[in-house]
Amino acid sequence: MNRQDCLALDAKDPLAFLREQFDVPDGVTYLDGNSLGVLPKTAAARVQKVVTEEWGRDLIRSWNTAGWIDMPQRIGNKIGTLIGASDGEVVVADSTSLNLYKVLTVALNLQRADAPQRKVIVSERHNFPTDLYIAESLARERGLELRLVGADDIGAQLNDDLAVLMLTHVNYRTGRMHDMAQITRDAHAAGALVVWDLAHSAGAVPVDLTRSEADFSVGCGYKYLNGGPGAPAFAWAHPKHTARMDAGQLWQPLSGWFGHAAPFEFTPNYRPASGVARFLCGTPSVLSMAVLECGVDTLLAAQALGGMQALREKSLALTELFICLVEERCGNQGLTLQTPRDASLRGSQVSFSREEGGYPIMQALIQRGVIGDFRAPDLLRFGFTPLYTRFIDVWNAVDHLVQVMESGEWRAAEFNQRAAVT
Amino acid sequence: MNRQDCLALDAKDPLAFLREQFDVPDGVTYLDGNSLGVLPKTAAARVQKVVTEEWGRDLIRSWNTAGWIDMPQRIGNKIGTLIGASDGEVVVADSTSLNLYKVLTVALNLQRADAPQRKVIVSERHNFPTDLYIAESLARERGLELRLVGADDIGAQLNDDLAVLMLTHVNYRTGRMHDMAQITRDAHAAGALVVWDLAHSAGAVPVDLTRSEADFSVGCGYKYLNGGPGAPAFAWAHPKHTARMDAGQLWQPLSGWFGHAAPFEFTPNYRPASGVARFLCGTPSVLSMAVLECGVDTLLAAQALGGMQALREKSLALTELFICLVEERCGNQGLTLQTPRDASLRGSQVSFSREEGGYPIMQALIQRGVIGDFRAPDLLRFGFTPLYTRFIDVWNAVDHLVQVMESGEWRAAEFNQRAAVT
Repeated sequence: MNRQDCLALDAKDPLAFLREQFDVPDGVTYLDGNSLGVLPKTAAARVQKVVTEEWGRDLIRSWNTAGWIDMPQRIGNKIGTLIGASDGEVVVADSTSLNLYKVLTVALNLQRADAPQRKVIVSERHNFPTDLYIAESLARERGLELRLVGADDIGAQLNDDLAVLMLTHVNYRTGRMHDMAQITRDAHAAGALVVWDLAHSAGAVPVDLTRSEADFSVGCGYKYLNGGPGAPAFAWAHPKHTARMDAGQLWQPLSGWFGHAAPFEFTPNYRPASGVARFLCGTPSVLSMAVLECGVDTLLAAQALGGMQALREKSLALTELFICLVEERCGNQGLTLQTPRDASLRGSQVSFSREEGGYPIMQALIQRGVIGDFRAPDLLRFGFTPLYTRFIDVWNAVDHLVQVMESGEWRAAEFNQRAAVT
Repeated sequence: MNRQDCLALDAKDPLAFLREQFDVPDGVTYLDGNSLGVLPKTAAARVQKVVTEEWGRDLIRSWNTAGWIDMPQRIGNKIGTLIGASDGEVVVADSTSLNLYKVLTVALNLQRADAPQRKVIVSERHNFPTDLYIAESLARERGLELRLVGADDIGAQLNDDLAVLMLTHVNYRTGRMHDMAQITRDAHAAGALVVWDLAHSAGAVPVDLTRSEADFSVGCGYKYLNGGPGAPAFAWAHPKHTARMDAGQLWQPLSGWFGHAAPFEFTPNYRPASGVARFLCGTPSVLSMAVLECGVDTLLAAQALGGMQALREKSLALTELFICLVEERCGNQGLTLQTPRDASLRGSQVSFSREEGGYPIMQALIQRGVIGDFRAPDLLRFGFTPLYTRFIDVWNAVDHLVQVMESGEWRAAEFNQRAAVT
């Protein structure tokens, strides 16, 4: 493979035009869509309309006239099409951390009712920290054990002690992807419930929550969904669980008024909305949701071309190419692949570790316009969002990586000063 | 008082120019800033810059280069100047409901440690429902009693059973304002902690949390702070409580990564940030916070003219005038004042009840461009944001109210159809 081959791959890529939906800055090779997706072209006009017309001109009336009140469900339904959920099963709300607190509490409450002897929450030691922090908080408050294990040791934890298995489908560090259906089946066989975090899956890889018979799920709006910095997150619950919650008047703990059955009756007692709407809490941020909708729509635009399956094929071609080129051209530079070579186990990112210099190497790449990110202590992380990443981007990124490594420029002091957010 | 007198009052009002900071639509008399503040003129350009430059062009780097990472504290500090809090004591985060869950849990945990026999949370029966729903959830989970009483019966509840008194400083229905310092003193004397919701106070009336020796406080960004629909909320804790939390490694329950002492170290165990920063949870919505900052800045612009004290004088003049004119001109129309006549007990709104027709009367007013709101079962609610409400707005609102009542037009079918949000 050479530069010309990459350009040729782009030229015959049927998904290439999807990139035109975005404003990718000139001179930037953006491989950090797994941290913050790029700007959809529709977003600026949409937010301007929301600010000047819906808020500025129509003011409070827009809750009705501009459909603000329906946004959590409307956008939730769109996200549902990407993750194998039916209409009415997903809501957009709050942050991933908060949604995890809600669904994990409900899962634990169901187990407390059905199998009170189950006192263990299991997760991966290298799950995204906020997931672990939320689980740790609940475990402390309830006298449960949060047990953190390696990805390969999960099977051994599926026993009579296990209340809830809480996993992120695609690991944020390695990009390793779990077999959602198989693990869920095994966990159910052991009597446990499973909570899936789709932060690095929704919009990145095909997900089928329904077919996997998952119990609860949450996910992030600002990564592969391109919803903008700090975009709201989403929550899903299996209909059998929401039906049981409906029947038993079961609550999620963050019982704010937007999750009430009739918020504008202003009754003093809480009565949860039926279905997944009970996972709403306070007044949602309209601006953020409007922009998130622009981001989600960029994925829906791929549906006529095969949707997530087609995007998956391109994603694998991109990550495969990146792995090959790095190993071919920087094979002697101390970079160790941390992402599975087996495509069925790989999300939409590639990570390499390096004993020394991971941070300044990434800073030097960023200085050259190749934006990935660094995850302590030693990971260089590269995200390949199939909606807007080209094969030539892969080539350019590796080309710059070769130059950074061979020149030793990353040893300069400027690249070794840590920023607040790394 | 007549129309000319009102115009004269505006002409000599030293705060009148503050209205120029806003885009108030032509033909609208907006008396609903207690539900959704109007659009600051700076907001459209600011959000455009955040979207196209900070997000679109600079992408992930803006967490450092555009100061995204500091927004919760920076805007929190600005809000602190309006509510008698020092720098570093307020953070912007999530929604009012969620912040209430955090601070109420901490208050209950402190009491569980110090006085476990105290099992009662007391609040007002007509507190804003989401506050009650959150308290109800915590009471259910912990086997505590949530006791709801009338505003005049709070004193009788200050006894050895009381763990936490949770009040909204200005009632959303009646506009009645509590004496924060006196009630806090009385509750402390009884051994209780006090949580104050400033949803209808911050930016509306002077508040001094420090001098009142309040324990915890939360408030809303989209009402008198003009932060836009669903703007993030804020949280404050007395420094003695955060110091104790620091010393004892005490958590708030929604322990997401933005409240971690070092979120970008990605450690598997939670370690709370010191001070009020531990009340952050997930990744904050940058767009919403940027717009909230525009709103908060409109209040800071009043500081050279006497700040909240000067705004308070204008607010009382507006509400006083509205009460007088309604009673003078619609005195025989079945409208009963529900807001205290005593200025020291009044927030920045006026509510009238009417046995019949509250909803359609308000709809008829809205049709005429006079926007207040209706709160079931019988309240017509009018907010008077001193930053942008003029004396002529008061006159015009009453003039339309007289016409709506005398014509009987509110009985038309079109005004009697309930919208989703009322």
